[in-house]
Amino acid sequence: MIGSKTKELLKKIVGRERLLDQPAELLSYSYDAYHEEAMPDLVLFPETCEEVSGIMKICSADKIPVTARGAGTSVCGASIPAKHGIVLCFSKMNKIVEINTKDRYVIVEPGVINIDIQKALEPFGFFYPPDPGSMNVSTIGGNVAQNAGGPRCLKYGVTVDYILGMQVVLASGKIVNFGSTNVKDVTGYRLSSLFCGSEGTLGLVTRIILRVVPVPETIKTILVTFDDLDNTAKSVSDIIGAGILPVAMELLDRATINAIEDSARLGLPREAEGSLVIEIDGVKEACEKEIKKIYKKLEANNAVSIQEAKTPKEREKLWTARRSAYGVFAKLAPDLLSEDVTVPVSKVPAMIRKTVEITKKYGLKVGILAHAGDGNMHPMIPADRNNIEQWENVEKALVEIVQAAIDLNGTLSGEHGIGLAKTRFLPLVMSKDDIEFMSVIKKAVDPDGILNPGKFV
Amino acid sequence: MIGSKTKELLKKIVGRERLLDQPAELLSYSYDAYHEEAMPDLVLFPETCEEVSGIMKICSADKIPVTARGAGTSVCGASIPAKHGIVLCFSKMNKIVEINTKDRYVIVEPGVINIDIQKALEPFGFFYPPDPGSMNVSTIGGNVAQNAGGPRCLKYGVTVDYILGMQVVLASGKIVNFGSTNVKDVTGYRLSSLFCGSEGTLGLVTRIILRVVPVPETIKTILVTFDDLDNTAKSVSDIIGAGILPVAMELLDRATINAIEDSARLGLPREAEGSLVIEIDGVKEACEKEIKKIYKKLEANNAVSIQEAKTPKEREKLWTARRSAYGVFAKLAPDLLSEDVTVPVSKVPAMIRKTVEITKKYGLKVGILAHAGDGNMHPMIPADRNNIEQWENVEKALVEIVQAAIDLNGTLSGEHGIGLAKTRFLPLVMSKDDIEFMSVIKKAVDPDGILNPGKFV
Repeated sequence: MIGSKTKELLKKIVGRERLLDQPAELLSYSYDAYHEEAMPDLVLFPETCEEVSGIMKICSADKIPVTARGAGTSVCGASIPAKHGIVLCFSKMNKIVEINTKDRYVIVEPGVINIDIQKALEPFGFFYPPDPGSMNVSTIGGNVAQNAGGPRCLKYGVTVDYILGMQVVLASGKIVNFGSTNVKDVTGYRLSSLFCGSEGTLGLVTRIILRVVPVPETIKTILVTFDDLDNTAKSVSDIIGAGILPVAMELLDRATINAIEDSARLGLPREAEGSLVIEIDGVKEACEKEIKKIYKKLEANNAVSIQEAKTPKEREKLWTARRSAYGVFAKLAPDLLSEDVTVPVSKVPAMIRKTVEITKKYGLKVGILAHAGDGNMHPMIPADRNNIEQWENVEKALVEIVQAAIDLNGTLSGEHGIGLAKTRFLPLVMSKDDIEFMSVIKKAVDPDGILNPGKFV
Repeated sequence: MIGSKTKELLKKIVGRERLLDQPAELLSYSYDAYHEEAMPDLVLFPETCEEVSGIMKICSADKIPVTARGAGTSVCGASIPAKHGIVLCFSKMNKIVEINTKDRYVIVEPGVINIDIQKALEPFGFFYPPDPGSMNVSTIGGNVAQNAGGPRCLKYGVTVDYILGMQVVLASGKIVNFGSTNVKDVTGYRLSSLFCGSEGTLGLVTRIILRVVPVPETIKTILVTFDDLDNTAKSVSDIIGAGILPVAMELLDRATINAIEDSARLGLPREAEGSLVIEIDGVKEACEKEIKKIYKKLEANNAVSIQEAKTPKEREKLWTARRSAYGVFAKLAPDLLSEDVTVPVSKVPAMIRKTVEITKKYGLKVGILAHAGDGNMHPMIPADRNNIEQWENVEKALVEIVQAAIDLNGTLSGEHGIGLAKTRFLPLVMSKDDIEFMSVIKKAVDPDGILNPGKFV
């Protein structure tokens, strides 16, 4: 609990109107898109780096846990205040500080929503590639904390690949800066890469310098269906094997297609066993040539239908199919487990088979969704955690899915993070010394363990 | 000094034949491509990770400084054993452990030479993009330690962008592993990115998993000359401004062109004030279209001549011009200062003017060489450090060049590193707290400070 004197000090920093302390208000900050909850004692909405620093000085002195939060879309529970204390919500630090497309960077505050960065860059003919499924609502601070991915990371890479620098408030309240606006910079340790993906356990990012890239001349998007899931997956490796690196290759299985059709009626063929949304971009002539090669590979793998978007609106529709999958599955049951195990791309077919087999064994529904070109699997399992028997089966299935991925040389998480969801699995992929080394870093940077405690480190 | 008992223990690990202790032998390991020296007490050549671990256990117990070394090509003195002790030379750990182009990775030991990775990948139609000037001799371990760049990093990014995982021996001798063979992996802290660029001050990398990419269908290379340096630099920003991201845009000034001609007689026009080697790659049709656009931009900037390589041999010749520059300048005087300040790309013309002005003021020769598309400047200053007055002028010029870069929003080093060369400049770009934070990390990971002591942290 936070003493009344401390609370007064905090109130002095953010003012009454940017502090929540009523149970009804706090409740909204006790959960995110993962299926656990923990109540914060206070929620604060800082507006400046200096305010964050002031807050941290107080929390550091009183050893109060602090959990950073953006839009609360974490599917691994990274923004749940597991040990209570303070939730620092960055939604009011949402300024785009500078756009400099000449030198290929933007400077943003952590509360800026991903899509707003895209919109701000559009008039300049630039974009910021990482596009997590949550991009319409999730904040860049959260994207950075989780090292978010997304469909087009196949070609363009993930969040960390776009971070040139950042400003961080440490547990002590000290303000530090790493990196610069220069696209190449090896001055000192690459600390912004360490903070990216650290899930708020090492510091609070208050400003980010992102590299941005020009919008390509042409984008081509197709939706392909197959009557066989193996052929669907094989098409993915065949296309990459042909030396083509599409922007995205998104895989959906029959269950996913049908769930989308039930909900959105996009006209997807319900009888298809597998489907791919493939997007390429670049110079027009290159796209035309590559798409022909892709068609050939798809036909060789017995594609049943290929729809090509002829207009931006049609492209939007094809993406809607893919992007709506999570929402559609979330409606099928009170809870949704969106898995994130990742395997080498050649192991995608085996991982799909294994996932279907495991979920079937436990009598669970599953929809397979995958950033297939990266081997990043998102099987979605709708269930009800109040149904104790079913939830135990979900837990058992999850353990087996994770083990199956590891047996295929895969890993725990491609882009969602560890958070509360996967800490217990760390020993499966890391040795005792590996895990201990993370603690060494954590203890050095946050000696009292006040930053997002109860998570993976 | 290392006691005889300790030496015996070390000898037991590597054997007599992989230990050097005679002054004449040690001398070769007292310097690298930077202009300082320090004698090691011993040089060891480990062959396995376990040997490295065994050595570190002994060094840790006795607090013996350990400096890792590959080919000794560091131009910032990163591989000089500033505090003596042991040089661990990784030249015998040079196995390519696995090539897996299906899943887009290779696993290598640190002593593998960069070019040997390229050669091994060639039959598979893949390559590893980072191409430091030293790539024919420098080891991947050194590339990783320095986060090496190179000409084609403009399009493809630097070393850290290709590291999927690594095995590291810590100061204590403990062996840890970070990352995996999966192209997407957010399991735990991104520690391989922290070790990359840490210049051997945090641990000894004994195995590296690198992402590799398919060789593009077409490569086009041109060499352009201008009678005005501003037009040369402006062409660079105009091309990028047109939404084209070439593989490389390498700038050479008149002094550099003439020095190359004096030495290699490649037929470069001696009267040119500036020259660019521009390379693009990708689908054939895209390259053809882009090269036309590039020609237009070059002509608009009054290019005097454009040579396009018609064959791989001609391409090689154009690159020889660029690649020979360092060697040519190195022959002009006993010492060569190869600078590495980096500025935002729009500031390249200003930085060139300033560099020429500063060196002129101090009566020094200078050749301007730059990865211009990245703003990464390599002014080369040949001089003689035994000429005390001249060397003082070099030092003064260097201080002013660094300050000029910072005044233009630039940074100390784009790809060479800090090492012995630039530690004193860190306070110009980092606050006291920023620098202290690096020490916090260093102290946590290497509490006795035995790993590459005397360097930037």
